[in-house]
Amino acid sequence: MRLTNFTDYTLRTLIYLGVNRSNSRLATISDIATAYGISENHLMKIVHHLAKQGYVETTRGKGGGMRLALPPEQINIGAVVRKSEEDQTVVECFEEGNLNCTILPACTLHAVLEQALRAFFEVLDRHTLADLIVHQSTLARLFRNAGAPL
Amino acid sequence: MRLTNFTDYTLRTLIYLGVNRSNSRLATISDIATAYGISENHLMKIVHHLAKQGYVETTRGKGGGMRLALPPEQINIGAVVRKSEEDQTVVECFEEGNLNCTILPACTLHAVLEQALRAFFEVLDRHTLADLIVHQSTLARLFRNAGAPL
Repeated sequence: MRLTNFTDYTLRTLIYLGVNRSNSRLATISDIATAYGISENHLMKIVHHLAKQGYVETTRGKGGGMRLALPPEQINIGAVVRKSEEDQTVVECFEEGNLNCTILPACTLHAVLEQALRAFFEVLDRHTLADLIVHQSTLARLFRNAGAPL
Repeated sequence: MRLTNFTDYTLRTLIYLGVNRSNSRLATISDIATAYGISENHLMKIVHHLAKQGYVETTRGKGGGMRLALPPEQINIGAVVRKSEEDQTVVECFEEGNLNCTILPACTLHAVLEQALRAFFEVLDRHTLADLIVHQSTLARLFRNAGAPL
């Protein structure tokens, strides 16, 4: 039962940006890469995705960077994960148009897994980014310790 | 949100064996591979795993093969999936001993994901293999159509 690294890094990026809101300096990809010790390349795709989804605003040029486009209370974790896992399916037969499995017409496993997934997302739906940054000052300290300008 | 193919095929193998209970002939790896159009190689690992977990009994030699070691009502889907996903973690920081993430000491995402996973498994825990083979005669027909000796 695995979320993609894309989703993992998407959530971590949002957490960084949530903590960075109290900073006058906009965050950069390099800041986030330093904060978590992960690759800038990976993060570029993630920031692009988050901007496309309307969670992040980016500004180009000197002093440019990014910030959250919404207050953390309005960023629902269930919605974020659903969007970043969009191409991901729990098992093969959840892929759109995939009719490969012999037992598809009589399979009840699909419904059971669907119900289980719904329960998973219902928990995430009850949380926003605000819940993930309740320990904001500790998070800021940890990011600073890792070398991020926060 | 993905289960491994290993888990997918594990569940499918159990479904086949559940349906094959009314057959006097023991099932073979080749039967199951034919039934689903999947590789025998893959299935060998799965049957070995299922036998180790006590779900499947195998008999060697002529007329040999395998059958369920327990009635379908006693094979809990939550337990099966937990066991086959044992080496799988929802995100990196769920790996045992993995302390790589900067924010670990102040992270609340871990607890949220843990709660969501629990909800996922609670649904699976309410189901047994018996629920997956309620349409037993249709399943048997679909397997036969695919060329399995059922």
